[in-house]
Amino acid sequence: MSDSPTPSAITPPPVIVLVRPQLGENIGKAARAMLNFGLVELRLVAPRDGWPNPSAGPAASGADIVLDRAQVFESVADAVADCAHVYATTVRKRGVTKPVVTPEQAADAIHAGPGRAAILFGPERSGLETDDVAVARTIVTVPINPEFGSLNLAQAVILIAYEWSKGQGLASPPATDLEPPAPQEELDGMIAQLDAMLDGAGYFFPPDRTPATRRMLRTLLTKPGWSSQEVRSVRGVLSALSPRRPRGG
Amino acid sequence: MSDSPTPSAITPPPVIVLVRPQLGENIGKAARAMLNFGLVELRLVAPRDGWPNPSAGPAASGADIVLDRAQVFESVADAVADCAHVYATTVRKRGVTKPVVTPEQAADAIHAGPGRAAILFGPERSGLETDDVAVARTIVTVPINPEFGSLNLAQAVILIAYEWSKGQGLASPPATDLEPPAPQEELDGMIAQLDAMLDGAGYFFPPDRTPATRRMLRTLLTKPGWSSQEVRSVRGVLSALSPRRPRGG
Repeated sequence: MSDSPTPSAITPPPVIVLVRPQLGENIGKAARAMLNFGLVELRLVAPRDGWPNPSAGPAASGADIVLDRAQVFESVADAVADCAHVYATTVRKRGVTKPVVTPEQAADAIHAGPGRAAILFGPERSGLETDDVAVARTIVTVPINPEFGSLNLAQAVILIAYEWSKGQGLASPPATDLEPPAPQEELDGMIAQLDAMLDGAGYFFPPDRTPATRRMLRTLLTKPGWSSQEVRSVRGVLSALSPRRPRGG
Repeated sequence: MSDSPTPSAITPPPVIVLVRPQLGENIGKAARAMLNFGLVELRLVAPRDGWPNPSAGPAASGADIVLDRAQVFESVADAVADCAHVYATTVRKRGVTKPVVTPEQAADAIHAGPGRAAILFGPERSGLETDDVAVARTIVTVPINPEFGSLNLAQAVILIAYEWSKGQGLASPPATDLEPPAPQEELDGMIAQLDAMLDGAGYFFPPDRTPATRRMLRTLLTKPGWSSQEVRSVRGVLSALSPRRPRGG
């Protein structure tokens, strides 16, 4: 009996429902968009050209698993029968009497659960019809340039899938090999080396400006947050530029 | 003269830079993706099939303003010469010695400013090369399904543009006294000065290591994000250390 959250508390990924999609190519592109962000469950409502569609595979660019698992339904109601939450994606509409959320807000709500969510996308040309939207409890609208709203089906899918993926483990930035800044004493050693060279070159003039100049240089060289390796590289550069450097023995 | 004045405190929208794009169709799709989220400044570095490209217009689906304003450059350095922040979009890479951020983090940083940002996108097949990435201070990576990463150029552009657009409705953060990083051409001038000095000092040896050494130096000197004033200070330091500097008249 562990106190940690049980796996059953994890909300299942949302189902993507393409309602009366027209081109097989766009179904394939939507599948590709989904799999990029870890969504695999695709449902098709009355695809215009039937299913399977030979144009879908090439457009999926390898997201075959999504197409192979795709299920076909005759109506929106059938497609979302097992879902607790239904979202309809639309452009801005007049007379909407349902809550309208952004993809980000929808993703948060889907993660919060509980229960499986479905997200409806309309046909390429016309979008969802009023009867389709009526099935949904919530409308998702991508905030878009009011003077140029031209999202295609796969782009709408990818934005929703992308937002959903942020709540997943996969959505963490990759670990980098970025080194921490060098310890302060290494920084001080580098600054002292430069200081000695500049002193020898008559850089600190007039004398009453020297403290301010030294502060400026320290600020300049502290800002980068150079790593130990980078500090060594800078010191190598300084040695190469040093007139007192014994060259050729 | 009906446009409302833009407060100077607002950071300008980022520039989208397509580096050696191959297909005109993809340039058009990228333009469409941009305009959906309010980005209009497109720069092309050495597009494979020249510019203008007759395939771009139809794919832009009406985003002609972006294509009409697109500028062509011969090199990445030229394309970002006036930009204070350069981001390179890449897939996961080993041995990265620059900060890696998500599109969301990049968008936040771009809004925080100050100074104009450029975002580099590589050719469709191969992505950005090492020398392209070396120009950037920061890497942007879309966290993606580790078992299926298949974003095309326009999809990468739309995710970045979408994230940027989110910050548009928000109150802009208070202007800070922080100076923006120097424009890239000032950085390049400083690097060229150091390079010439090091070349004269016999630093670049052996010759087959020179390209890697130059990249290391560029990364080192790009990291600080030095302001114009700071770049001038560094150049003053370099001049003081230069053996060819005429001193005492």
